[in-house]
Amino acid sequence: MKFFENGDALTEPMGFFCSGVHCDVKGVRNGKLDLGIIYSPKPCIGAGVFTTNDVQAAPVRYSKQLISESGSTFHAIVANSGNANACTGNQGEVDTRKMASEVARHLNIHSKEVLVCSTGRIGVPLPMSRLTTGIRDACEDVKDGCDGARAFQEAILTSDTCTKSCSAKIQCSRGEITIGGVVKGAGMIEPNMATMLAFLTTDIQVSSTKLQDILKEAVEHSFNRITIDGDMSTNDTVLLLANGNSGIKLEEETISVQQEFADAVNAVCSCLARKCVTDGEKVSKFVKVLVKGAKDSDSALKVARCIANSLLVKSSWYGSDPNWGRVIDAAGYAKVGLSFEKLAMFYNETPVLLNGIPLIENKTSWKEIVSSKEFTISLELNMGEAEGEIWSNDLSEEYVNFNKSE
Amino acid sequence: MKFFENGDALTEPMGFFCSGVHCDVKGVRNGKLDLGIIYSPKPCIGAGVFTTNDVQAAPVRYSKQLISESGSTFHAIVANSGNANACTGNQGEVDTRKMASEVARHLNIHSKEVLVCSTGRIGVPLPMSRLTTGIRDACEDVKDGCDGARAFQEAILTSDTCTKSCSAKIQCSRGEITIGGVVKGAGMIEPNMATMLAFLTTDIQVSSTKLQDILKEAVEHSFNRITIDGDMSTNDTVLLLANGNSGIKLEEETISVQQEFADAVNAVCSCLARKCVTDGEKVSKFVKVLVKGAKDSDSALKVARCIANSLLVKSSWYGSDPNWGRVIDAAGYAKVGLSFEKLAMFYNETPVLLNGIPLIENKTSWKEIVSSKEFTISLELNMGEAEGEIWSNDLSEEYVNFNKSE
Repeated sequence: MKFFENGDALTEPMGFFCSGVHCDVKGVRNGKLDLGIIYSPKPCIGAGVFTTNDVQAAPVRYSKQLISESGSTFHAIVANSGNANACTGNQGEVDTRKMASEVARHLNIHSKEVLVCSTGRIGVPLPMSRLTTGIRDACEDVKDGCDGARAFQEAILTSDTCTKSCSAKIQCSRGEITIGGVVKGAGMIEPNMATMLAFLTTDIQVSSTKLQDILKEAVEHSFNRITIDGDMSTNDTVLLLANGNSGIKLEEETISVQQEFADAVNAVCSCLARKCVTDGEKVSKFVKVLVKGAKDSDSALKVARCIANSLLVKSSWYGSDPNWGRVIDAAGYAKVGLSFEKLAMFYNETPVLLNGIPLIENKTSWKEIVSSKEFTISLELNMGEAEGEIWSNDLSEEYVNFNKSE
Repeated sequence: MKFFENGDALTEPMGFFCSGVHCDVKGVRNGKLDLGIIYSPKPCIGAGVFTTNDVQAAPVRYSKQLISESGSTFHAIVANSGNANACTGNQGEVDTRKMASEVARHLNIHSKEVLVCSTGRIGVPLPMSRLTTGIRDACEDVKDGCDGARAFQEAILTSDTCTKSCSAKIQCSRGEITIGGVVKGAGMIEPNMATMLAFLTTDIQVSSTKLQDILKEAVEHSFNRITIDGDMSTNDTVLLLANGNSGIKLEEETISVQQEFADAVNAVCSCLARKCVTDGEKVSKFVKVLVKGAKDSDSALKVARCIANSLLVKSSWYGSDPNWGRVIDAAGYAKVGLSFEKLAMFYNETPVLLNGIPLIENKTSWKEIVSSKEFTISLELNMGEAEGEIWSNDLSEEYVNFNKSE
């Protein structure tokens, strides 16, 4: 597998076109690109994973329904930033359908072949007249065969500090398959609340159920590692379109190629998820929390999340303070029945605790590790064989300052 | 019931003596009082509520065991700040027993009549030689009949910005009963992690089981309102001693006096819990989150906690931003099956949403309320009859700065 970061990504698989325009969704005339379209003239098989929040935005309900309909194919995704179209009642549904039908009208496709995503402020109706103008412009761009991959990446950003993309290519006897992906989502310091939208394209030919299985598995080991309780905000969505342009049919390939394709989707999702964590609003560190020796993987993840979501733990990371007591306190709070006397803990490879006894002689080394931009905290519970990993980051003063108002 | 705040509190019930000394627990010679004793020459009935964290500090295990032994009585509580004696292995247990036996030796009582509490940094053994000197001095003070109530209040503080105390008096035909209480605990912005110690004294005569029931009920409606999932840190402890010095026996009083006594314990605990929230590290606002119309009280509390613990919600309170979208997103994250279309939400009495429709005309009023030092957010789920309330506060930049290292 060849892997590339920060490229065009979505238009690297054959036969995909993108665009991004400014249509002033927020009504602030700042010129920011805020509406984008992904388009494939050839119909695509689609897969999607959506938020499980009780409150789901209108575009989430809409796209989820379309993805679940058997036999459906897709030509386009339209996405806007600046307004989540969430908690907007019946009007929200009307507006979502209108977005789809406008795209369909300009691209001469069926409105059921258009998926819709929105991200931004909750509870405010979409400014539809400005959006429809934007949709018209964005459709013209993709019809003209414009490679607006970078413009699309920018159009979906909200509080992100940078665009985030990557792609993977795999070789097989019949040729090359490409997978491209982009994501928006910062504020991953509280991932259950910050909207995460990810879009993937690929030129493989594949069945709908197979594609859905591969995407679901990949999300489990990537985006769900940066969420709390595997949960998401009102708008979180991951979409994958496969247009078959490579002429390679996944189900006809060897098991090893099939596995390589799944690995490539995994790699793209993992890279994107990781980019979200490190682009958290004003985040300075990336921390892996790995819990081993748990009774089952649920309890491993529960402990890892308690540590990764503790404000006191996150604050101490920001201060480069190797405060293992806060880590243990947070772990105990998960209430999986752990015994302090059985615990082992490590900063990277350096032991902090063995059988509950601190190895104070390593203190200088702990401090050094926690001072770095990236490190792993491993906790061995010695209760069983299961493990779980969560990706987190530190909590900085700037985070609070940034989020105190919109 | 007469109610008093910020007084001597613990020594207001007859026959209790307190002291607080500096014995340099942290080894920084800052002169801070860091060891205190509560003493009653007359033996007391004791009640206690302890953390349910998987990891419990040695003094918690010790005191919990003593409280649970039937027929036990107590003369004293010894408490230190600066070191939690948590995650200190077998040494922690030895040190806890030593603290109790030293107090017992100086006060000529049995070591099983001494309860022990510690708060402060986790994972560091207690400096026992300095502690034993402190215990000697503190015991001399209480033996001399010194009213060191204020010194005791100071001795238990860690990151608190002020001492926190209150007392209640109730009249009955046979005389007056007094209940006094003090608490330490700031950083209640993440209450599951910040140690909370509360001590109550009363001069009523009462059975052990009755006292335990009353305390447990009071904690449920006070300290557990400021905790996440009803859970606590490695050291959290609430202790209540009753020495019977008033000569009034609770079980011989009328039902209404019995109720009034329980109400008074409740009032003291509520007042102390509230003081913890507003003394959170660098906290500027007190916010009640009330969830009504839930299927059961568990799900009401779950929704309230999701709102009250959301970083994005807390950050917006700090910025006085009436961002109801973040509140709803957090509520949806609780996954109790709520429907946005059925929701009503209020800032104090001012409606924000009715049947999921925002009442934008009230926007100025929302902003005014969220700008105040104290307000209530009510959410009506319209799913049933149950309700639950959680007390929270805002997240300020200063919080992060304060907690980035110890």
